[in-house]
Amino acid sequence: MSNLGKTEWVIPDGFMSDTESGNYVSHEAICVLNLNDECAEVELEIYFEDRDPILGFVASCSPKRCNHIRIDKIENKNGVKTPHEVPYAIYVKSNIPVVCQHSRMDVSDPKMTLMTTIAY
Amino acid sequence: MSNLGKTEWVIPDGFMSDTESGNYVSHEAICVLNLNDECAEVELEIYFEDRDPILGFVASCSPKRCNHIRIDKIENKNGVKTPHEVPYAIYVKSNIPVVCQHSRMDVSDPKMTLMTTIAY
Amino acid sequence: MSNLGKTEWVIPDGFMSDTESGNYVSHEAICVLNLNDECAEVELEIYFEDRDPILGFVASCSPKRCNHIRIDKIENKNGVKTPHEVPYAIYVKSNIPVVCQHSRMDVSDPKMTLMTTIAY
Amino acid sequence: MSNLGKTEWVIPDGFMSDTESGNYVSHEAICVLNLNDECAEVELEIYFEDRDPILGFVASCSPKRCNHIRIDKIENKNGVKTPHEVPYAIYVKSNIPVVCQHSRMDVSDPKMTLMTTIAY
Repeated sequence: MSNLGKTEWVIPDGFMSDTESGNYVSHEAICVLNLNDECAEVELEIYFEDRDPILGFVASCSPKRCNHIRIDKIENKNGVKTPHEVPYAIYVKSNIPVVCQHSRMDVSDPKMTLMTTIAY
Repeated sequence: MSNLGKTEWVIPDGFMSDTESGNYVSHEAICVLNLNDECAEVELEIYFEDRDPILGFVASCSPKRCNHIRIDKIENKNGVKTPHEVPYAIYVKSNIPVVCQHSRMDVSDPKMTLMTTIAY
Repeated sequence: MSNLGKTEWVIPDGFMSDTESGNYVSHEAICVLNLNDECAEVELEIYFEDRDPILGFVASCSPKRCNHIRIDKIENKNGVKTPHEVPYAIYVKSNIPVVCQHSRMDVSDPKMTLMTTIAY
Repeated sequence: MSNLGKTEWVIPDGFMSDTESGNYVSHEAICVLNLNDECAEVELEIYFEDRDPILGFVASCSPKRCNHIRIDKIENKNGVKTPHEVPYAIYVKSNIPVVCQHSRMDVSDPKMTLMTTIAY
């Protein structure tokens, strides 16, 4: 069942509103599924329109497990987080094949809306 | 017209809110189309972040038919259902090529929102 | 620029609520883009969970034009339309390569929600 | 890391409501990520159901940068913009490989709803 997936994934449309409503906070997630028998080491890079990318976001996904990586929560090696209210793009690299999906929850309205797509 | 599709499909972002609103309940569905002349035997596996997967969800899709498999309703061989309020991922295996799409209805807001993507 | 696209497309998750709200009616659309220099003849088939498919929905897409085919409006050769409140799937066949995207507007809530995906 | 992506992308389902609500305006965006070491020159073409396409929308995406191209804001060489309340489709051509995603925000309801998909 292994080798289903790819080692590189891209999401060009990233954006997190800096809002909350009730129990919800606006956020994005990169959801990873690892069907292999070994752990997947995943690295994320965040790209911007007018500044250098933020590199070095590290996560892992155990064998036969998924990981819903919250973009609003993860910090890179230097403790830097992804900013809100700024357009960005996400590049995901894994050492073994995984499958990646991207989803956004936006509660700025304040009625919640969702959008999702399998990453490229 | 047969052989359009694949035998393996993956959805990394699964999540069902444990809410209802009016006539609606929050749920997810794996929608399968079988364009072959024989029945498709479909098996689903649900993967989690911190526990072993739940295997052995079995469904079928008759020839020239679709099947909107409700993740909140289907039970595996042991009568186990997919839990609510927990992130998961879905792996679909069919004995013959089919096409799979995943959709979520979330009414926790309580205004309904939908999201969908062709599975990977 | 021609030959960008495919001649067969599939959408497994079709469903139209039988509702309207203000100026909106719940509906689905298959959006086709034809980048060729000749007209695309497009045929749609609607598949169901428990009955025979409805065949023979015919549309065309002129060269260098798009066509947002409304599933709630198109009739097949026998004057039959796609039913509401029933799960279905859509198969699209074109005589030349086109690109297809599927979108749903649901106003049953009655707050509008949208979902979309490039077809498979 | 370069060569991840493609030079041609298509979105068949374009539509912008001519509405605003609070701080929001209904709009669409083509989000581009350029992982190459050189600048990507991007050209957009807008196709319609019943009239000639509008050509010559030009944008660029710097190396290691993303660009969320707002369809409601970009003008072509002749100062023409994409019309509202009209179905259209988008064709994107880049001189080097990039990755494209399409998203719509609709606030006509006036509750905001979002939809997205990786382009074809």
